[in-house]
Formats: sequence, structure tokens, C-alpha cells
Amino acid sequence: MSKIKIVTIGGGSSYTPELIEGFIKRSAELPIREIWLVDIEEGKEKLEIVGNLAKRMVEKAGLDWQIHLTLDREEALKGADFVTTQFRVGFLDARIKDERIPFENGLLGQETNGPGGMLKAFRTIPVILSIVEDMKRLCPDAWLVNFTNPAGMVTEAVLKYGKYEKVVGLCNVPVNHMMSESKLLGKDASELFFHFAGLNHFVWHKVYDNKGNDITGEVAAKVISEEEAGVANIEVMHFLQDQLDHLGMIPCYYHRYYYLQDDMLQKGLESYKNEGTRGEVVKRVEEELFELYKNPDLKDKPTQLEKRGGAYYSDAACELINSIHNDKKILMVVNTRNNGTIDDLPYDCAIETTAYITASGPRPLNFGKFPTAQRGYIQIMKAMEELTIEAAVTGDYKIALEAFITNPLVPGSTIGKKVLDELLIAHKKYLPQFKDFFDKQ
Amino acid sequence: MSKIKIVTIGGGSSYTPELIEGFIKRSAELPIREIWLVDIEEGKEKLEIVGNLAKRMVEKAGLDWQIHLTLDREEALKGADFVTTQFRVGFLDARIKDERIPFENGLLGQETNGPGGMLKAFRTIPVILSIVEDMKRLCPDAWLVNFTNPAGMVTEAVLKYGKYEKVVGLCNVPVNHMMSESKLLGKDASELFFHFAGLNHFVWHKVYDNKGNDITGEVAAKVISEEEAGVANIEVMHFLQDQLDHLGMIPCYYHRYYYLQDDMLQKGLESYKNEGTRGEVVKRVEEELFELYKNPDLKDKPTQLEKRGGAYYSDAACELINSIHNDKKILMVVNTRNNGTIDDLPYDCAIETTAYITASGPRPLNFGKFPTAQRGYIQIMKAMEELTIEAAVTGDYKIALEAFITNPLVPGSTIGKKVLDELLIAHKKYLPQFKDFFDKQ
Amino acid sequence: MSKIKIVTIGGGSSYTPELIEGFIKRSAELPIREIWLVDIEEGKEKLEIVGNLAKRMVEKAGLDWQIHLTLDREEALKGADFVTTQFRVGFLDARIKDERIPFENGLLGQETNGPGGMLKAFRTIPVILSIVEDMKRLCPDAWLVNFTNPAGMVTEAVLKYGKYEKVVGLCNVPVNHMMSESKLLGKDASELFFHFAGLNHFVWHKVYDNKGNDITGEVAAKVISEEEAGVANIEVMHFLQDQLDHLGMIPCYYHRYYYLQDDMLQKGLESYKNEGTRGEVVKRVEEELFELYKNPDLKDKPTQLEKRGGAYYSDAACELINSIHNDKKILMVVNTRNNGTIDDLPYDCAIETTAYITASGPRPLNFGKFPTAQRGYIQIMKAMEELTIEAAVTGDYKIALEAFITNPLVPGSTIGKKVLDELLIAHKKYLPQFKDFFDKQ
Amino acid sequence: MSKIKIVTIGGGSSYTPELIEGFIKRSAELPIREIWLVDIEEGKEKLEIVGNLAKRMVEKAGLDWQIHLTLDREEALKGADFVTTQFRVGFLDARIKDERIPFENGLLGQETNGPGGMLKAFRTIPVILSIVEDMKRLCPDAWLVNFTNPAGMVTEAVLKYGKYEKVVGLCNVPVNHMMSESKLLGKDASELFFHFAGLNHFVWHKVYDNKGNDITGEVAAKVISEEEAGVANIEVMHFLQDQLDHLGMIPCYYHRYYYLQDDMLQKGLESYKNEGTRGEVVKRVEEELFELYKNPDLKDKPTQLEKRGGAYYSDAACELINSIHNDKKILMVVNTRNNGTIDDLPYDCAIETTAYITASGPRPLNFGKFPTAQRGYIQIMKAMEELTIEAAVTGDYKIALEAFITNPLVPGSTIGKKVLDELLIAHKKYLPQFKDFFDKQ
Repeated sequence: MSKIKIVTIGGGSSYTPELIEGFIKRSAELPIREIWLVDIEEGKEKLEIVGNLAKRMVEKAGLDWQIHLTLDREEALKGADFVTTQFRVGFLDARIKDERIPFENGLLGQETNGPGGMLKAFRTIPVILSIVEDMKRLCPDAWLVNFTNPAGMVTEAVLKYGKYEKVVGLCNVPVNHMMSESKLLGKDASELFFHFAGLNHFVWHKVYDNKGNDITGEVAAKVISEEEAGVANIEVMHFLQDQLDHLGMIPCYYHRYYYLQDDMLQKGLESYKNEGTRGEVVKRVEEELFELYKNPDLKDKPTQLEKRGGAYYSDAACELINSIHNDKKILMVVNTRNNGTIDDLPYDCAIETTAYITASGPRPLNFGKFPTAQRGYIQIMKAMEELTIEAAVTGDYKIALEAFITNPLVPGSTIGKKVLDELLIAHKKYLPQFKDFFDKQ
Repeated sequence: MSKIKIVTIGGGSSYTPELIEGFIKRSAELPIREIWLVDIEEGKEKLEIVGNLAKRMVEKAGLDWQIHLTLDREEALKGADFVTTQFRVGFLDARIKDERIPFENGLLGQETNGPGGMLKAFRTIPVILSIVEDMKRLCPDAWLVNFTNPAGMVTEAVLKYGKYEKVVGLCNVPVNHMMSESKLLGKDASELFFHFAGLNHFVWHKVYDNKGNDITGEVAAKVISEEEAGVANIEVMHFLQDQLDHLGMIPCYYHRYYYLQDDMLQKGLESYKNEGTRGEVVKRVEEELFELYKNPDLKDKPTQLEKRGGAYYSDAACELINSIHNDKKILMVVNTRNNGTIDDLPYDCAIETTAYITASGPRPLNFGKFPTAQRGYIQIMKAMEELTIEAAVTGDYKIALEAFITNPLVPGSTIGKKVLDELLIAHKKYLPQFKDFFDKQ
Repeated sequence: MSKIKIVTIGGGSSYTPELIEGFIKRSAELPIREIWLVDIEEGKEKLEIVGNLAKRMVEKAGLDWQIHLTLDREEALKGADFVTTQFRVGFLDARIKDERIPFENGLLGQETNGPGGMLKAFRTIPVILSIVEDMKRLCPDAWLVNFTNPAGMVTEAVLKYGKYEKVVGLCNVPVNHMMSESKLLGKDASELFFHFAGLNHFVWHKVYDNKGNDITGEVAAKVISEEEAGVANIEVMHFLQDQLDHLGMIPCYYHRYYYLQDDMLQKGLESYKNEGTRGEVVKRVEEELFELYKNPDLKDKPTQLEKRGGAYYSDAACELINSIHNDKKILMVVNTRNNGTIDDLPYDCAIETTAYITASGPRPLNFGKFPTAQRGYIQIMKAMEELTIEAAVTGDYKIALEAFITNPLVPGSTIGKKVLDELLIAHKKYLPQFKDFFDKQ
Repeated sequence: MSKIKIVTIGGGSSYTPELIEGFIKRSAELPIREIWLVDIEEGKEKLEIVGNLAKRMVEKAGLDWQIHLTLDREEALKGADFVTTQFRVGFLDARIKDERIPFENGLLGQETNGPGGMLKAFRTIPVILSIVEDMKRLCPDAWLVNFTNPAGMVTEAVLKYGKYEKVVGLCNVPVNHMMSESKLLGKDASELFFHFAGLNHFVWHKVYDNKGNDITGEVAAKVISEEEAGVANIEVMHFLQDQLDHLGMIPCYYHRYYYLQDDMLQKGLESYKNEGTRGEVVKRVEEELFELYKNPDLKDKPTQLEKRGGAYYSDAACELINSIHNDKKILMVVNTRNNGTIDDLPYDCAIETTAYITASGPRPLNFGKFPTAQRGYIQIMKAMEELTIEAAVTGDYKIALEAFITNPLVPGSTIGKKVLDELLIAHKKYLPQFKDFFDKQ
């Protein structure tokens, strides 16, 4: 049986040890030959630190995998079987701006699907599309497993503009929900059936027990009454019970930015005033992590990584790779092409949903139509995403502006334009496609 | 040829003289036998004042029409050919609350499709449904021509819950756009082709000249650069040129509450502080109007009525009645059942669109799919409308709350719930269907 | 753990031993308390014969299950957990007419979705709806597992007109395809992924290997070049290779009646001339089977049953019951509500498709849109099915006629009307709902 | 006001005098400068004959229009305002084959949407696409008014593959229905409202009077009971009253080939035996017409042309040109892009429907969803059309075969393949795109 080659773009990320750990855990099933950690010049130092830790981890596990650290993306991609992407254009400094500028204007930045996340999409999508072009030449049969945020928009860009079919987007939010809710119920996740449908960071789900009962309401009530299993990077703040009753589905914890916009904004502003942006907090955590990683005696993923906020992202990637490679036919929640799974959304857009994972890729369980309440909201969010992606690809300022006006976190054209312009200017270096806009400044 | 019977519910309205004038203008074509002005006990005095003016107007025009003033709705409806509805549950005092309570909470009330308008829907829909039940018994072949706001939601309620097919909703916004834009271009409206599509007070349009050119962009630029023909009840405030370019359609002037929410809110709060609510202004105007109407020498619609803000509403109703009765086969903009005219919206909802008016009712010109930007926004607005209507019919508090959270003028659950609760309590008298909510207070 | 009660309507069927064998095979997992075999007066003798064989089989297996034989449907249904239906209104004599009358008029009868099958639907649907009414009263939480043909139309009738959600329709055609194709490839079915979508007896599928390759074309070629694993009740006759190439999917063997209508008609007429109808052949087979069943020493399903033509139907039912009861989360091909799984068909119709079976019922894998060729054909077949079901429920002759004109096996109104009328008259006894038609004769 | 240039491709057609007459009738409104009659070398003689008649007609009418006769298509198209197409690739000899070969195989040829019409599409679509390419270079703002059959498929090919938006397809079938039904009712067409929806030669309609009553049933009954106003080229043969009642719409007279396939086939075969194909009859009529046209004293359209069978086609083209040029805003039945007008069909296909004609083109009245019976049948017909168009453009034999198998006039693959192959070979000269198929013969 032939062994596989895995390439990780953004290999210098602090998450890499979780990824390596995930592969090691599955080494009995997953016949890895080589793992290539790729990064760019500015990330070289981190790549070396984390790459060496990766090597020590593999060595300790007694595996013969080759670990390559490289700045040469093309060399890495040649003949790859799986490519994972976890890079951050502009590093955490860019995220800090995505959060700070909206706050300074009295708005939530929301670095995944708010104004901040839209700018992240502007920076990230051109890079992912160039990776996809490389893949078409160098490893046209490889699966692209993306967990760079905004994971849904990035997946859609790859499908629609990159015209690359073998892509799956991943997120740890559904995983966290399934884990914490199983724990609340005192059950194993395998005893339950979770059906997720929506968009990345804007997904709802239902829960059924193994007797066929819809226990969504019961779970929702528990989620509210008991303290939720910790999600490091988001305020614990509860949806109204009356709303949960009406929705008949459990919103994901990122829905708080929308359903509880007023409270989240107030909390966010307070916390911004007291501690700075979340990006700054994360930056400090990361610096500590890299200090730990440098220790030549460290040969495991340090537990401190779990504080970082993205726990289980990388593990989900390993699980997906394993499932595709071994045709495991299990359910996972993925970002993939809609194809009518959710009838209320365009056929060719990306959605986040529960899918049956086969060797030929994810096969979503059909979902159908949302109730009215979810339907209207998801439709405006998807329109916002589509406009954002189109602006990211074309660099058309008018489309970017329309995307901002469409985002429910932006309460009007005047403030929307102001925040957009400030963000574009702050990120100018990473936004060559918006040249026309910059030329006019 | 048999003559027709017209019934106007809310006959004591200050708009009635425009309606009567509209019928008089069309007397050569439209064979009226009798007009019944119906009102409720609390509106009796106004009914008498305006009813007597109506009689003087008809007499001056030398017409033999019978004008009946009555509080007995059933007697009036018997055998009617057309029923128009222009009533306001709770009179202007209710509107004042619809505007004041949101302002007091830092929100726009928007008395047609904002929080205020949602409460108006809660008060109005049960009444219109009871009228429809009367019509089914007393005049099952009559057309219901509604221009009570929110005209779109009221029309949808009649179609979906009233199961009454012969209903058309009217609004003066499209008429105002067509008149002012023709004037800006120095053309007659008949030289242009306007294609409207959207929801009531949330409609966009395109303009074509009689050479087949799409002149929407040219018109949009003129609307921005020149002072618009006055719309009495709304701030003049311009959409961003970049947004108009991207939309490729002209938003209606009520779109300002959404696209320019930040500016409209600021202006609205200032104006509320200085002059009180728009409802209070209107109330003063109405009082002056009724003083004028009392004058027994007044035998025409006074020009002061035009200041009132709803000009052309009644005229549109007369034109529609004329077109249906005489199979005129002209275009008008109406609220009617979607039936796939706009592909992005539910098949059975009400939309506002350009229709070809035949004796068998309006036949919308097909519209198709909206561009992304319009699509997302109209979809959340329609979901909000559907939830609002359902809450109005069922009195289900949870649905009402969800409708509030869905409305883009409401920035979160906490403030949404607060404003909803205050509004419900303020209007308790007119909201018997929300008994369960009141019982819990 | 509580044990379950299973009720089989049409318990006197020759298939019952397969069903019992299926339960016995799963006895380790499936905790059965009692099985009720129900039949009608005319089927009493067969019920006793086959019921006693069932008892002997269970006894031989050393199981303590209670086997009840009864003509009292209500008593049987009380508190049931699963109800299976395998009855044939009018017994095989009715099928013989369904086949003979069309042949006499030069048409294919096709007793499942041709003119014959439409009459079978007319006879069967009122009975299944009365069963469903009983179930709502007597066992409202039970699952109805139907394998009475036409299984798709019966399922749709239960969902749409019976308003009963817990229903699954089963067919052995997909099972046969999966088994014979796995065998042709020399693989185990578990190494492949089959994706079926369509209607009962009008379903197409794709095949993927465990490396993710689409091997549909390879399988189709093998199906043509090698002799197919025997399907007892259908002519071996091959689709054109050029058509298979274009479809990109494998049609089921019942598609021959449509795609190869000319050849099938010719063969069918020959065989009708030589051997009489298939119904008559089956009747002889059944008589032999019942002779075997009478033998008190027989304590197993006799292998001769496999000649009967419906092999694996009953086994599929057992597997489904097991999967639902034990939340097995495996894939099965079922007839269930569309809900947008196939975008080209009405949302609320029944389809046949690959589904993930949970304790809360089947969750179809999303399919999306068919290519043009499949799309047009399945749409007319579904319209025919919808009209047939509506005629079966209402007894409206005009709808029945339209259904006939719509069926692609009926080449025109004149012949269609003649065949319909003859069939209705021949089955008058079982078609009380068509009273108006009979009154006019 | 600038005068217009009209180009007629296939100018040598026997219909040209009707076209010229149509323009002359509208000369007061329609400011024509020049008319170019274009034909190919083989049609030169006919072009001269009919072209000279055209000149005499214009002269007699006292008009200063320039009439150009040319074989140079490019010169003709330069700067055109309207281009009409009425050519027949392979002349009537090709049609004769389209009819004869199916009859010889026991099938209806149906030269517009049956097997014959499909071959006509294969011959015509490449030519129309080359005309469109010329138009893009030489007269990119011109409207293309097509009445070459199959008019619906040709229109769809221009829209979908030619990517040319300014195209309208016309047919005389709706005109004939409106004229004959008005006559049957003793009314003027303007007193009625006809709503047509469907495909070319597969269109249904409803009729309303000027009181708003749906009088479709009344009209259908009259159509059956009284002799229809003569349609020269189609058998009078009546739909079943029971079917008409159920449809609730009137099928067009070409529907007979499908709904009454059995009778039409029998009649057709008889008539083929006795008189040869309809094409041969038409050919004799045409020869007589051209003899008449040669007469230098003839200065009007001879009444004999009406026997030809296509009456009102050309007049409809003149009316459409007039309506577009003068922004007449009248209703006409046209073939145009669906855009959701009929919800049951693909968004981008061509349909035939009632449209409001403006200077910017036709605006269909929305139709919505068909009842079940129409829905299924129109969907398979549209799939057949789409496959036919795709085969015509690509020359892919497998798609052509699938199109044949899909057509309800073709009762199976074996006969379908035989007829297709014979037709392709018979028309080899005009089917260069099917080179691969011919190479294999």
C-alpha cells in the first residue's frame, strides 16, 4: 500500500503540534510517508521552532515519517496527497487591526464573519487561490483541507473561483458543541445524532438520542442553565429561552455576535478598553507557546495550547484526512458545496453541514428548508459572504462597500464606509487587488 | 350596464377627500351608484365631517352618487363591488407610541416596517381578517383594495390566513418615484418604462426610455444631484453613489431607514427631541385639516392635504378600481401574491411589483432573480414580515420576539425584547390575541 | 430493555418465511416479543399455512417470540412498534388482469409503474390509508415499513394524504443491484459506495470504490458484457452503451420498460402468447410454495422461494427495523420524503434514495440536480405518480385518465382511455372510490 | 427621427410577400429606410422572383423604401436595426426526409418537435449561431426576430450558446388560437385576455373575458363542438373533453401529436400512403406560388399564400418590430428567456409566453407553476429540447441519441437509434458537426 504525503501551509502556526499529535494518534491507520511544513520568509523562525518540536514528537512516537520544513511551496506541493492550510496573512497584527478599528468606531469587528472577518477574507482569498493554482499543476488529485478562517468563505472561493472541487473546510465550533453537549447529557457522542446546518460560525443544529427522540429542546435548556464547557475565545452569554424555543434548533456560540449583538458589543467594548483586543491577548498566549516550543526537551503538544481557542481544529483535519484516505464512512461537520442540501441558499455556495465522509469526499445529509427565522438570517449572511468573496477576488471597492452595508453588524452606510476605508488602508500591504481604491486615496 | 357599489372602511380618514376627488375625476368611465364610508364609534365625529365634505364634493360635480355614512360595517359590505381599507387601529395616538417607544430606547421606530410598523401589523391584521370574513359572507366577489399600512404585510395576511384571493395592496411610494423621476428627466411617465420589484416600502426599480435604453444609472445620478421632488414625511438623505452603482437599481426612499440607518437614527433622534414624533406632527396637520373640512363652503379637496404625506395613495386606489372594472390593461405597481415573480422569495408571499391590470386582477410582469446585494436584504425583510404576520395572527409572543430579533433595525435580543415588551404593553387594548403575554405580566 | 411488537399486514403472503428468517438472523440484536401476522378472510387459509411455518421456524431457532395469526387488524395494531405491509388487494388474480388487459391492447402493463401498476395503486392506496388511520389511534409511534407495490406511490400517499410521518418504503431492486454489481467486481459491497437516486423502479445509481474513484462506467460496461446475476422476474435486455455513457449513471433494471419499451413490448407480447402473463407464472410458483409450506417438517425458508422474484424485499425490511431500533447508522436505499434531496422534484413527494438510517428515521444523503436526460424523464414519471395517487384517493376519473395519458407507456388518449376503462371495470370490486365512473357505465 | 434598416435572412422564402405586406400595413408608424432580402446561392432564383414581387408591392404602396436582394449576408447585416430569419436549411427536400423516414419506421416525424423537428434543429442551429456571430460584429444592437422552426429551440440556442440577448422567437400558433377563439365567441380579441405559457408548439393557454371571468372551459367546449377556424397544416382531431376539464387550460393544436399520438400516427400513416408527406404537398403549393409570384402584374400578396400553412407568422414579426421600435407596450406571445416566468422549467431556457412588449424587449407576464399534468409533460419536452440543442451545437452522437430516447414520440431505444441513424445519414450534407458519427459509418 502506498504511503501518503501531507503538506501544511502555514506550518509555522502555533497549532501545528496539535496537528502532529492528531496524525500520531492515527498512525496505526494512516500510512504517512512525509509531512511538509511550509511557511513564508517572515514566518521562518516560528517554522523552525515548531517544526523541530514536530520532529521531536514524531521521533518520540517511534515513527519513520519524514518531516520537512521549507519556504518553497512549489517543492512541497509536488505529488501531495493532502494539503492543509492554516496560515494567517499578516499574522496576528492583522487580526488586531481587524478588531481594533471597528471597536474604535463603536462596532463589533468579529474577526470571522464581521467587518474584521471580511477584511481577513480580502487578505486570505487571493493567497488560497494562488495555492490552488499551484495544486492544479503540482498535485491535481490532492484534497485541500482548509481551516484558515473565514473557513466557509475560503471554501466557497476555492470552489467558485478556483474551480477546484477537492476541497473541504473545517471548523472546531461544531466539534466543541458536540463534545460539550454530550458531556452535559452524560452521554457519549456516538449515542447521539447531531444534525448541523448553516454557514461557518453561523450554524444551527438539532440533537436526537438513540431512541429517535428529538432532544434539542432539552439540550438547549441545559446549555442555558449549566455552565457551558469552556470556549476560550468567546464570552459566555445566553440566548433568550423564548428564542431558542421558537428556533427549535441550537444556534452555535458565534451566533451571539448577531442574536446578542447589543450585549456582545457592550462587553466587547469594555474588554477592549481593559485588555485590548482579543488578538493582543492571543498574541501574548502565542509568544508564551513559542517559548515553550523552543524547549528541546518538549516532545509533546503542551496542554497550554488548549487555552489558545482553536482546540480541535487540527484534530478535525486529521480525522477528515483519515476518513477520506480510509473510506471510513463516518459523519463529520464540514464546509462543502451546498448542491441543494439547504434549499434556501444558492446551489453553488459553501455551507457547513453534517456529512457522510467517503473516499470520494463528503456527502452531506440532506437538510431541506429552514424555518422562517433561520431562513431570513442565513440568507442575508450568505449574500454578505458572496459579496465579500467577490470583492476579495475582484478588488472592486463598490462590492466591498455593499458587503459591509449588508453585514448585520454594520448599522448603516456612513459608518460602514468609514470602517471599511480605515480597514482597507490599514491592510494596504496585503490587498494588492484593491489598487484602484488606493490610487484614489 | 350595472352600476357599482364602493365601500371605504376607515371612511372618516383625512384622506377621504382625495379618494372622492379620484372617483370624481374618473366619473365618465366609472359608473358608481353608491359609496359607503364606514367607521367605528370613536371615529364617528370625523366620519361626519369628512363624509359631509364628500357629499358636497359629489354634489358640486353634478353626480347622482349616493354617499352613505355608517358605523354598520355589515350593512355597508352587503353586495359591494369594491372595498377599500384605510383605517388606523388606535388612531394617530397609536402611531405616536410606535415611534416614541423605540426612540426612547435609541432605536428607529419606522412605523411601516420597523418595530413601530410591526406593532401596527399586530393591531391591524386581526381587524382586516375579520373584515375579510364579513366579505366572504356579504360580498364574496368584491375586490379588496387595501392601503392601510403596512400594506404588504396586510395583503399577505389576507392571502395566506384570510384565504381571500381578490385583494390588492397599494402604496404611494412607487407613484411618487415615477412622478418625481419623470419630472427630473423632463419627460412624461408614459415615455418611460419603470420596473419595480421588492416589498412594500422596500422596493427597488429600474427605468428604461422609449428607445429601449436602461437609464437607471442616469436617473439615480439625477436623484442624488438635484433636489428631489418633495416627499413630505421622510428626510431627504442620499444613498452613496458607489452603492447605487453596484445595485444597478434605485432603492425607494424608505430604504433609507435601512441603508442609511445610522444617519436616519441620528436625524430621527434630533427631530424627536425638537419636534416630537412624526405622529405628533401629523396629528397637528390632521386637526387643521378637519377644521378646514368642517367649513360648509369647502366643496373640493383642500390643497393642504398634500402636506399630509400620503398623497396619491387614494388616487392609486381609484385608478386600480377603474382599471379592474374597465379591464384597462395598464401597468400599475401593486402588492400581490408573488407566485414566482421574484424567484428569491417564497411562492405564496406578498410582493410589491409592476403588474398588468386586467379585469381578472393584476398580472405581475415577471422579475426573476435579484442580484446578490438586493437578494440577501429582501430575504431577511420577508422573513421578518412573515414572522410578524404569524405573530399578529397567533398572538404567539415567541414569534413576535423572533420577528423583532430578525428586523435589521433591532441590534440584538436584549434591546429587542425590551422595546417589544414596552410596545405590547402600551398597545394592550388593541392586542387581545396576545392575552397569554399580558397574563404573565 | 423493553421488547418490541411487530405487525405484518398481509401476513399470509408467500414472502413471510423470508421475513421470519430475517428476524431470526437478527435475533441477537433485535429484542422481539411478538409478531402478529394479519390477513383478511379470503387469505385465511394461506395465513394459517404460512403462519404455522413461521411458528416452526421460530421454534427451531429456539426463540421465545409469540407468533399471532389473526384477521383482527385492530387487535394486532394495538401498541405495535413496527408495522410491515406486504398485502396484495385482489391477490394475484388482480395482477393477472393488470397485465393481460394492456397486452390485449398492445401495451405493456408493467404491474408496478405502468398501466397495471397504476391500477394496483388505485386498489392499494385506500387500504393503506385506512391502515394508517388505525395506526394513528392504536400505535401512533410505530414505524410503517411498506413493501407493497407500487412502494413509492404508496409511501407518498401515506405522507401526503395520510399525514403520517413515520413511514419508509422498501424495494429489493437496489439491493439486487448492489449485490450483483459487487459480485461482478469481485468485491464486498462494503468496499464500495453506491449512491442511488430516483423513484421506486425508476432509480439510477453511481458507484465509487474505496479509493474515491467513480467506477460507474466500469460497472456499467461489466453489467452489459457479462451475464447479470439473475433477476427472476424481468427480461435480460441491455441498455445501449452509448446511452449509458451519456447518462453517467446506471439505470435500474426496471428502466428497461421505458428506455427499451419497444423491445420489452415485443418480448412481453411473445411471452404473453406463449406462457400467459407473469402473474399466472407467479401464481403457479406460489401454489407450489404453499404446498411446500404445508409440510409440517419444513422448519426453514425453502430455497424455492428465491425463484419467486421478490428476494431480499423482506430481508431489507428486517434490516431497516433493526437499524431504526438499534440506531445503527448504516446506509440503506429507501423510499422517503424528498425534502429537496433531489432538487428537480417536488419537495413533498416520495423518492427512492440512499439514506443514513438513524433511530429517528432515514436521513437521505443529499443528491442535488440530475443531468438533463434523467431530469426530464423522472419529472414526467413523478407527475404520473402524483396524478395516480390523487386519482386513487379521490376516485376522480378525469385525473385517472390524465395519469394514463401522462404515462410514457401509453401512446395516446384514445388507447389510454380504452385500457383505463377496461381495467377499472375489471377491478370494480376493489375500487369503490370510482363509484361515479361505474354509475355512468 | 432616424429610419430603420431591416434584414431578412431567407429572403427568397415564399412567405416574404406576407412580411412585406405586414410592413406596408404599418408604414405610417414604422419608418423604414431599407429592407435587405438575403439568401444563399441555391436560393438565388427564388430570391429574385420573390424580391421583385416585394419591390412591386412597395412601389404600388407609394413608399420610398429601398429593397435590396443579395447573397452577401455580411454586407446586408452591416448596421441593421432588425434581422428576421425565415430560412430552411436544405429547403423542403430536407423536410420531406424529416417526415418520410420516421413514417417508414412507423413513427410520427413531426417536423417541429418530433424526430423530424430534432433533425431540423441539428441543421438550423449551427447556421443561426453563425448569423449571430456576424451580428455581434456588424450590428451588435440589432434585434434578431426568428421564425425559423423549431422556433423555441432556435431561440434557446441563440441565448444559451450564442450569448446574444436581443432575440425573440415567433410562432403563428398562438395568433391562430386567439383569432379563431375570438371568432368562436363572437368577440374582438381586445375584449379578451389570453394567457399563454409553455414551449413552442407545446403551449397551453387560459382565456378571460373583460368582466374578469375565466372562460377557458367555455372556449374549450366551443373549440370541440364547433368546427375550428381552419389550420391548413394539421389534422382536425379533438382532445378528450375529460382531459380538457382536468387541464383547466387549452392545449395548442400541436399538442395533438402528443396527447393524441395514436390517432395522429394512424391518420398520418394513411395520409402518407395516399398523398406522401406534408412536405411534398407544401412543395407543390410553393411551386404554384412561385409561378404566381413571377407574374409582373402581381403587386400584392396573393391570397393563395394563406393555404401555405404559416399564415400570420410574418405578420407577427412585423407587429413585434413595430412594437419594439415604437415602444408600443402591447401584449404578444413570444419565445424568450424563461427567467423564472414558468417556475417548473430551467431559469435560462426559452419558453413561449404572453409578454408585454417594450422598447427594451419582451417582459413576460409571470406565470408561476403549472398544474401537475402540464408540469410533467412540459418538463420532459424541455429536457428533450435541451438535449437536442446541445447535440446540435456539439455534434455529440450520444446526446442526440439520448434526445431521441427522451422524446415521447419515440417508443424505445432500438427504434429511436434506427430512425436517428437513418435521418443523420440522409442529412449528412447539412450536419458537418456530426463528423465523428459519419467517420464511424
